[in-house]
Amino acid sequence: MDLRVTYRLLAVDGPAAAARARDIALEQTVELPADAVSRDVAERVVGRVELIEPWGEAGDRGGGGGAGGGGEARWRAVIAFDAALAGSDMAQLLNLLFGNISLKAGIRVAGIDWPPELLAALGGPRRGIAGLRELTGAQGRALVCSALKPLGASAAEIAARAYQFARAGIDIVKDDHSLSDQAPAPFRERVERCQHAVARANRETGGRSLYFPNLTAGGARLLERADFARRAGCQGGVVNALPVGLDALRAVAAATGLALMSHPALAGVFFHADHGIAPELLLGDLFRLAGSDAVIYPNVGGRFTFPEATCAAINARLRAPLGPVRPAFPVPAGGIEADRVPHWIGRYGTDTIFLVGGSLYAQPDVAAATRRLVDAVRTPPP
Amino acid sequence: MDLRVTYRLLAVDGPAAAARARDIALEQTVELPADAVSRDVAERVVGRVELIEPWGEAGDRGGGGGAGGGGEARWRAVIAFDAALAGSDMAQLLNLLFGNISLKAGIRVAGIDWPPELLAALGGPRRGIAGLRELTGAQGRALVCSALKPLGASAAEIAARAYQFARAGIDIVKDDHSLSDQAPAPFRERVERCQHAVARANRETGGRSLYFPNLTAGGARLLERADFARRAGCQGGVVNALPVGLDALRAVAAATGLALMSHPALAGVFFHADHGIAPELLLGDLFRLAGSDAVIYPNVGGRFTFPEATCAAINARLRAPLGPVRPAFPVPAGGIEADRVPHWIGRYGTDTIFLVGGSLYAQPDVAAATRRLVDAVRTPPP
Repeated sequence: MDLRVTYRLLAVDGPAAAARARDIALEQTVELPADAVSRDVAERVVGRVELIEPWGEAGDRGGGGGAGGGGEARWRAVIAFDAALAGSDMAQLLNLLFGNISLKAGIRVAGIDWPPELLAALGGPRRGIAGLRELTGAQGRALVCSALKPLGASAAEIAARAYQFARAGIDIVKDDHSLSDQAPAPFRERVERCQHAVARANRETGGRSLYFPNLTAGGARLLERADFARRAGCQGGVVNALPVGLDALRAVAAATGLALMSHPALAGVFFHADHGIAPELLLGDLFRLAGSDAVIYPNVGGRFTFPEATCAAINARLRAPLGPVRPAFPVPAGGIEADRVPHWIGRYGTDTIFLVGGSLYAQPDVAAATRRLVDAVRTPPP
Repeated sequence: MDLRVTYRLLAVDGPAAAARARDIALEQTVELPADAVSRDVAERVVGRVELIEPWGEAGDRGGGGGAGGGGEARWRAVIAFDAALAGSDMAQLLNLLFGNISLKAGIRVAGIDWPPELLAALGGPRRGIAGLRELTGAQGRALVCSALKPLGASAAEIAARAYQFARAGIDIVKDDHSLSDQAPAPFRERVERCQHAVARANRETGGRSLYFPNLTAGGARLLERADFARRAGCQGGVVNALPVGLDALRAVAAATGLALMSHPALAGVFFHADHGIAPELLLGDLFRLAGSDAVIYPNVGGRFTFPEATCAAINARLRAPLGPVRPAFPVPAGGIEADRVPHWIGRYGTDTIFLVGGSLYAQPDVAAATRRLVDAVRTPPP
């Protein structure tokens, strides 16, 4: 079966767009000019350009994005690759989609049709939306997550905050993605203290809050930390998915059974107007296929730059039917104000985890603000 | 000690640039607004903005790069972070340098001053330039590398090509970076056949050509493949460094002792005019610190887009003194014509590995063209 990729290209006219598409089909497979490839290899391996057409309305011109500019318009190119070329890991899949051509201007991965065997080989999340609902006991409503911070606080201080959040009923209390193993709150001490604090709060409230430590680390240390967290009683963790490599998610989930919330650190380098990979494909399809049970992304109106349509597209891609691949939770974040959460539930629906971090810390009474937030999420809409 | 990072920012004026720099210093550390951070944490942890000034001449305005545009100019912001925040792995280092702010527009990492303890913790290449010269026996001259391709050829066909290249005296015969474990040339069969072919050629010529298979794979499979290659007799391999995660390089080198040539697949997403990480920092400093003994990059004038100044800067960063970190070989590639290699030796010097791939395949007599190439590299300049 084919992996069918839609690229949005900048080109001055149809023939130029067709030439660019043909170049991508060669570059991403044989890395040779067409005349240096045998007919047999060309037929079996080189991508097939199936469509070239103007992207949209006349005048839909490229702008910014590190791309060409001057007189170029956007074109849709659909290229079909033999899915077997992608093998069964994210590293080679990313390479096939955008590896070498990342070094050229004016190319954006805009759509992907997934062949069933590739979906089956990659697998996706082990728990997904249903699994996280089961772990937290949160059914029929949105979930709420908060972040432990700041970097620089001691493990005891962070654990006190974790206790406060869990007491108030936050479903998932997660480490800030910058907390790794720095001296003020070393990983092992932090994990033990925070997990203990959340378990204590749960005993007191009868609740089922989860603590997700930041597991991000290089090489074998990622698995070591995940294993430590599991033995400490954690049911999940946070991973900065791109810095560690997307395949690491599957490795952690397989080795430990932990639920995984992926953080989008570094992802912004892919999101240029006319270059990169569309956010809903990277943070939606690819993060999900790699094994994320939940994916954090910067919500519109916060301190980052996604428009609402992009947020909605990420939500849709994380939840949509995708062969045997479980749906994953979208986790809009990045400056969500606590008192706007009911608004966002209305927009995004209940299959959403709202990550409210800094805006809670800015409140004079964090505990009270957290309780109001939890009430808002648990109260059915009128 | 401090990790001192120079960011190039787009901003409309000095106060706006200062506000952006302050925002980066907070976002990359505590992820909280200044007024939600205690004085103690602010002093110990939040980045210190040490300098804000116009980037260059008046009128040096940003263009493209997914950045703002309209009326913004470029500003230099130097921010000092406590190096301990980066820990000792590439994942957290990348996160500290550009993790969250990758999601904002108009920010580019333009310079990094490395504190000695971070250099010591990261380590860099285990072999570097001197080590690869020792392995190949190539002293006092440039090295030449060629690529085995295309994807779709059988392992036997690829091994025949490896034999031909090694017979002609190519120093390093490497897999194309897209060859992973696809059916026409499965990894294990390909490695055994190619290593055998190169060893046979060496016995016949008395040469010391090396075969570097592409080790790239997801999760634990990368280490399995590296270990298999080592046991088959290989002395090194190729890794698509960003798709697998930069820390994987160190893990492979530590576990197997293999020399590592890093491929820049996906790296282009970082290289926008006003957003990302400068190529000489990503492919130079960061790839080197992660453990690359040699780093492939797209040479000027080929089918990719770096200007010559960028290539020279990458060369300089890979070779420059850097505390205890060994120098690494630059490997200009991507459409280097065989007959232009003497020109490039003149430009780049002999501490360079020239990767000549497709242009050899385009020759009517590949073996003869390869011998001419090897002669050109081995003949001292007049």
